[in-house]
Amino acid sequence: MKLIDHIRDIKDFPTPGILFKDITPLLGNKTAFAKAAQELLELIGDQQIDKVVGVESRGFFFGGVLAEKLNAGFVPVRKPGKLPHTTVSQTYALEYGTDTLEIHKDAIQPGDKVLVHDDVLATGGTAQAVVKLIEALGGEVVQCNFLIELSFLSGKEKLQGQDIKAVITY
Amino acid sequence: MKLIDHIRDIKDFPTPGILFKDITPLLGNKTAFAKAAQELLELIGDQQIDKVVGVESRGFFFGGVLAEKLNAGFVPVRKPGKLPHTTVSQTYALEYGTDTLEIHKDAIQPGDKVLVHDDVLATGGTAQAVVKLIEALGGEVVQCNFLIELSFLSGKEKLQGQDIKAVITY
Repeated sequence: MKLIDHIRDIKDFPTPGILFKDITPLLGNKTAFAKAAQELLELIGDQQIDKVVGVESRGFFFGGVLAEKLNAGFVPVRKPGKLPHTTVSQTYALEYGTDTLEIHKDAIQPGDKVLVHDDVLATGGTAQAVVKLIEALGGEVVQCNFLIELSFLSGKEKLQGQDIKAVITY
Repeated sequence: MKLIDHIRDIKDFPTPGILFKDITPLLGNKTAFAKAAQELLELIGDQQIDKVVGVESRGFFFGGVLAEKLNAGFVPVRKPGKLPHTTVSQTYALEYGTDTLEIHKDAIQPGDKVLVHDDVLATGGTAQAVVKLIEALGGEVVQCNFLIELSFLSGKEKLQGQDIKAVITY
């Protein structure tokens, strides 16, 4: 069973010209879901992880699974206004315009070893913003861990010095 | 260690008059996270589950964990426009106005035994809409499973005939 066979291409989503990688067939297949979780975990090896940071909201699907498997806490990074307590925020450039992400200020303690997880690494702007948030709170990013890397979008260039791993690479 | 000690009350969030139950301290504490996952799982017992349906987006944190533990697939129910393939939708009443949720039409097969998971059962409107979506696709809801039940909001009344379970009840 190949995980890549459970990724569905959706043309022109969310906007014209984008070929969206829909992971819901993989999520919905119990064998593929378990295999993806296992392979995401294997990317980390035996590194110690204190917190798994999942990125809103497709990074939450496997982010919780990884936290539980790694005996770590789970920290959501969210869109503005969703986190109820004191946050720090990071604004980053999109192709047109900007976007902003927030993290609770008390979610990372100085010295925490942090795994960043999201479903897809595309241009790397989101992951770069998440790394900045974690580092601003004194955390150490051990790995940026993705289900899918779209290597033709060169996201790794924005994440130099980081350990970048993905289960499926296009 | 009591899970309830890791729930933080936030006054007037997201709107004045609401006392919001913030679960992020529980998520971020590795011992509390693991204990919550274990207790959510124990609510289900040995019932067979084919799919875990998690509700956007705080239902995703433990929804994936439960799917992995139960050897089930995971299905996200999302806000309009977030799911890229063909969906069915359900609109439901809020105190003022309405809200809508969507599920992929191919996410549930007739006869699937489904666990609904969300973080909080409040008035029950969201869970009721999710049950309707699953039943419209021919699925059978085995349990509605929550981290927290706000019993004073009487959400169970909207979910009569369902098995409603929660780890923490206020």
